[in-house]
Amino acid sequence: MRHPNVPESLEGWWILHRMFAFERSAFSALSRKKRGRSVQDAQQLLAQLAGSDDGDVGLAQLVGHKADLMLTHYARTFDGLAQAQSAVDHLELANFLEPRDSFVSVLELGLYEATARIHDELGRRELKPYSPEWNAAFDALLGEQEHNPRNAGRLWAKIPPRRYVCFYPMDKLRGETVNWYTLPYAERARMMVEHGKIGRSFHGLVTQVISGAIGYDDWEWGVDLYADDPLVFKKLIYEMRFDAASAKYALFGEFFSGIQFSPKNLNEFFSGSGLPALVN
Amino acid sequence: MRHPNVPESLEGWWILHRMFAFERSAFSALSRKKRGRSVQDAQQLLAQLAGSDDGDVGLAQLVGHKADLMLTHYARTFDGLAQAQSAVDHLELANFLEPRDSFVSVLELGLYEATARIHDELGRRELKPYSPEWNAAFDALLGEQEHNPRNAGRLWAKIPPRRYVCFYPMDKLRGETVNWYTLPYAERARMMVEHGKIGRSFHGLVTQVISGAIGYDDWEWGVDLYADDPLVFKKLIYEMRFDAASAKYALFGEFFSGIQFSPKNLNEFFSGSGLPALVN
Amino acid sequence: MRHPNVPESLEGWWILHRMFAFERSAFSALSRKKRGRSVQDAQQLLAQLAGSDDGDVGLAQLVGHKADLMLTHYARTFDGLAQAQSAVDHLELANFLEPRDSFVSVLELGLYEATARIHDELGRRELKPYSPEWNAAFDALLGEQEHNPRNAGRLWAKIPPRRYVCFYPMDKLRGETVNWYTLPYAERARMMVEHGKIGRSFHGLVTQVISGAIGYDDWEWGVDLYADDPLVFKKLIYEMRFDAASAKYALFGEFFSGIQFSPKNLNEFFSGSGLPALVN
Amino acid sequence: MRHPNVPESLEGWWILHRMFAFERSAFSALSRKKRGRSVQDAQQLLAQLAGSDDGDVGLAQLVGHKADLMLTHYARTFDGLAQAQSAVDHLELANFLEPRDSFVSVLELGLYEATARIHDELGRRELKPYSPEWNAAFDALLGEQEHNPRNAGRLWAKIPPRRYVCFYPMDKLRGETVNWYTLPYAERARMMVEHGKIGRSFHGLVTQVISGAIGYDDWEWGVDLYADDPLVFKKLIYEMRFDAASAKYALFGEFFSGIQFSPKNLNEFFSGSGLPALVN
Amino acid sequence: MRHPNVPESLEGWWILHRMFAFERSAFSALSRKKRGRSVQDAQQLLAQLAGSDDGDVGLAQLVGHKADLMLTHYARTFDGLAQAQSAVDHLELANFLEPRDSFVSVLELGLYEATARIHDELGRRELKPYSPEWNAAFDALLGEQEHNPRNAGRLWAKIPPRRYVCFYPMDKLRGETVNWYTLPYAERARMMVEHGKIGRSFHGLVTQVISGAIGYDDWEWGVDLYADDPLVFKKLIYEMRFDAASAKYALFGEFFSGIQFSPKNLNEFFSGSGLPALVN
Repeated sequence: MRHPNVPESLEGWWILHRMFAFERSAFSALSRKKRGRSVQDAQQLLAQLAGSDDGDVGLAQLVGHKADLMLTHYARTFDGLAQAQSAVDHLELANFLEPRDSFVSVLELGLYEATARIHDELGRRELKPYSPEWNAAFDALLGEQEHNPRNAGRLWAKIPPRRYVCFYPMDKLRGETVNWYTLPYAERARMMVEHGKIGRSFHGLVTQVISGAIGYDDWEWGVDLYADDPLVFKKLIYEMRFDAASAKYALFGEFFSGIQFSPKNLNEFFSGSGLPALVN
Repeated sequence: MRHPNVPESLEGWWILHRMFAFERSAFSALSRKKRGRSVQDAQQLLAQLAGSDDGDVGLAQLVGHKADLMLTHYARTFDGLAQAQSAVDHLELANFLEPRDSFVSVLELGLYEATARIHDELGRRELKPYSPEWNAAFDALLGEQEHNPRNAGRLWAKIPPRRYVCFYPMDKLRGETVNWYTLPYAERARMMVEHGKIGRSFHGLVTQVISGAIGYDDWEWGVDLYADDPLVFKKLIYEMRFDAASAKYALFGEFFSGIQFSPKNLNEFFSGSGLPALVN
Repeated sequence: MRHPNVPESLEGWWILHRMFAFERSAFSALSRKKRGRSVQDAQQLLAQLAGSDDGDVGLAQLVGHKADLMLTHYARTFDGLAQAQSAVDHLELANFLEPRDSFVSVLELGLYEATARIHDELGRRELKPYSPEWNAAFDALLGEQEHNPRNAGRLWAKIPPRRYVCFYPMDKLRGETVNWYTLPYAERARMMVEHGKIGRSFHGLVTQVISGAIGYDDWEWGVDLYADDPLVFKKLIYEMRFDAASAKYALFGEFFSGIQFSPKNLNEFFSGSGLPALVN
Repeated sequence: MRHPNVPESLEGWWILHRMFAFERSAFSALSRKKRGRSVQDAQQLLAQLAGSDDGDVGLAQLVGHKADLMLTHYARTFDGLAQAQSAVDHLELANFLEPRDSFVSVLELGLYEATARIHDELGRRELKPYSPEWNAAFDALLGEQEHNPRNAGRLWAKIPPRRYVCFYPMDKLRGETVNWYTLPYAERARMMVEHGKIGRSFHGLVTQVISGAIGYDDWEWGVDLYADDPLVFKKLIYEMRFDAASAKYALFGEFFSGIQFSPKNLNEFFSGSGLPALVN
Repeated sequence: MRHPNVPESLEGWWILHRMFAFERSAFSALSRKKRGRSVQDAQQLLAQLAGSDDGDVGLAQLVGHKADLMLTHYARTFDGLAQAQSAVDHLELANFLEPRDSFVSVLELGLYEATARIHDELGRRELKPYSPEWNAAFDALLGEQEHNPRNAGRLWAKIPPRRYVCFYPMDKLRGETVNWYTLPYAERARMMVEHGKIGRSFHGLVTQVISGAIGYDDWEWGVDLYADDPLVFKKLIYEMRFDAASAKYALFGEFFSGIQFSPKNLNEFFSGSGLPALVN
């Protein structure tokens, strides 16, 4: 830790994405009463998870065959994710939801610039690297980042209440000649700054949530985008694709896109004989 | 947005391809009456979706094991795709259609040449780049493209009523040494022009629909080809494969090929004890 | 079309390979009478398809877990393939055959040498390239190829009645530095000639059927080999693997190998309580 | 064996990881009595395996869709793994546990530095390489490593009783230009030393168990990390990713992360109607 | 055939590996009598196949989730493999064995050195290459290899009766810059000799069976290792991995490892309520 070649990061919510196929046919075979009760139980649990200070839950109807429903759980602890997973699995409704995919991660603010500034500052102070004084000073400066209200707000913000959501996992390439992890720190930092500028040029149009999954899942990061216009997803990601950080160094996993809705509309999603009335 | 390295595009219909395996054996176990009613319900929904000004629906019998039936939905909005998906999923018939694949995208006209012309024109006008005046002028010039009748017609054309269909997704390569996204704009534009010439040499023989899927699905683009002679698909794609834009820079996904038919022939497809009479 | 960089080809039969797992346990649960009738129905259909002038059908018992049975359909039209597929799917027996794989293609004679000769000949005649006269002359010369009895015989030959069959799909490599599609025509033609010589050195020992799948399936070509001695498959393919066209430029898909049998032995395959008596 | 280019290693426990999906719905359909008895039987077996001197067993609730439960078996012999596998498969509870993944390996201490020292020492003794004297001396020096109490303790330590576990398999890259196995011994040894330093900088925060799987499973090594804080997994693996041994030469498989619990809490995991009380 | 760039080989047994998952739960639901009879039928068939001069059969309990049971069939002909497959599939027990993987190949002795010697010898005799005399002489010299008792013994040896088995398929790499098939013959021969030396240094500890699968299965070769100590697999394969033939040119498929047992212990494997008593 604290290696000058490695950017520090701040962590917020633990995040669990779960993608389910809905077995509509089996569910429809239940009596109306049983269906009603199982949706109500789910509604109650999800509303409770969404309303809690210790977490949040997002629901989205997905388009395409990969899955029908995406649950996005936020929790203060990894155990909180496990508990949310268990609680949903114990629902009667879970018998009709076949898990198809998932993603385990923790909300993360990467600190390429700030890490470099901290190392520089400690260099100026002429402390012996990794001495107790140096470590304490490092922690203090990193703590300033963590308590900076702008960062704190992003670490613990609830799921953005925008109508459309796009989720995908990604890696930084470790190819035989093009390898993000062997680049000098300054070059990586410069590319991340350029990359961030594109994101900022979409300010107001899209809310982005980055989470780190190294050690928890098969990709290094997860990206959630939230917008009021689904075309924004294509415009933003396509423009970024020409940026060096993506063009040369990004590997993408599967993309999930859909429409967010509230627990109180769960019944339209599961039992509606007509088209579900999606909310927000 | 408006970065001179990034081609602009125009968007039309939202498109959802759905590929299903038909569980013939389970369906045949239904009573003739139930089969009849469920096909009739499907027919009614699909005819309504196909007849609407706000969308379209295409049906194709696929050849090969990947799927038996492909539905192609067009809708004016992303929500319209979600609604079409839900409506089909609520059909009795959906209990006998197992989703095997899908593709979520939006019809797209790429504007490599026009984008360059707009940037050049704005350069000549000596407006401050990205100033409100510059942005307004850019929007006006792009709007000319959008309202150009030839483009407008392609953005909102219904599904081509030709007998044979071929669908495949594709990416532009981001290899370690061969990387479309790090090429200079002019070089990409030149290759796209060459690529388009091959397409035009097949004018009249094939109708091509390109849609963008970045942010919605796992490939960057979807390609639908429609023709009256299925051999044209092989001739066209094979010739393009020697063109630099494909030879060096195209990655292809799975290919689906089949025969289009109309909702009114749905009964032949699902219940016909003999060979289905395919239409058009 | 008619681009001098692109080899012309002649097309014959449309071909559909279907690989099925046989659900023996469920089939055995039928009454002997039902089993007998369903095999008889299948026999009748397959014998009719095999005896027709408009197509053929091959049956093979496969070895290994990928599939138990391979059907190879030949048809004069793409619609003929769709009809053959439908007809088989409507059999009672199809309820016990789980589709595992398939390949859609069209029998193809590649004309690397002849195409070059035609372009040369037209150059000598000093016709304006792509003028109506040039196109007519091109068509006439290509037509000579098509009606050459040796080619015509290969385009429309029935499935070779040899005991052993080996099927695999393949692509030509489009790597970042080794790319078949960016090679000069003459170099590709030279390699195809060398490649063909190996095939000819196995003359009499093996019958080879090449089909093109671009636009119809996920690989560019399918290869069927038929022989009276299964060791010939290994000897031939291994020798070819050292030839530049394969060594550097061939990508191979899954291999299926098995023993051909006739529709009249279908009962031994499906119901035989002892070992099936395989024919030819 | 004993090739100076190949590092020696010491082996301890044979290890079998098993990842299961729990079919909660089918299990819930059992009578309370049957559920109770089947959990009790499992508890008894697992407690016996965990309490034995000849092995150990770890249980973890996983987060995400890949699996719900991970069993980690330790055994003194490969046969012991097979017996543990059989014993679990014979449990009534096994009918509700669907195997999703597994990993077969043997705990391994790599001896890059010690192997080089042994070869150097034998060189100094001027023994004829691979003579009986040389071999005996080699065995004696390697035996010193094996009986070194620090190594012996690590070879046969029980599963670390920390709350969080992270498991993933990995390979060393054999790329066309970047190939671990063609590097000189000294360069590999130097990188392994650097790599080990990062691990040691996390001393106290994480317990690492490396096992070798060459010949037994599809990856070369398995890595288990155990910690009291799950964030440590991300911090450690991310820092290592910038280290040459990982940045250039490591390929990673799927990551499994979860929360360890004791056999005595099995009932909370399987039957608990509320949230399971996970233990330490 | 007989191209000086292509090594000749000798072929012995046809080999079929079959890997099955055992559906223990469904099998246990049978009456004790039915279970007994179905195991007895299997025992009788397998004992007969194992005792025959025309083949052999090996049984192994596998460790890990990929499969529970591996059958290794040897037969004098390809038809013999098909017959063995059919015979097993017709067993009552086969209803409880789900095929998960398989490998079709033929036992092969590669003759890199002998082929070169034959070509050299024929060169010295000044025969016209590929003339009838040359071919006859080639056949005679190759026949000497085939009838050499050491080779003949290896071509038709029964399955080694050692307790542990390890099976994996492999390819020689055809990368863009590292390509086994474009190397000069002499360089390949030299590497194969070095590779063989490692194998010989494990003489007595391991029995190796190489089989060729080109034309029959998805990998080029299959490798079976048999040993009395399972650690030998790791030591041997790891040492080979540093050898050029493996380090640069080998691609490996999935590894299966397990414990061999005899047909007479089939009942312990399938019905044993305790741990199966594995034999040898």
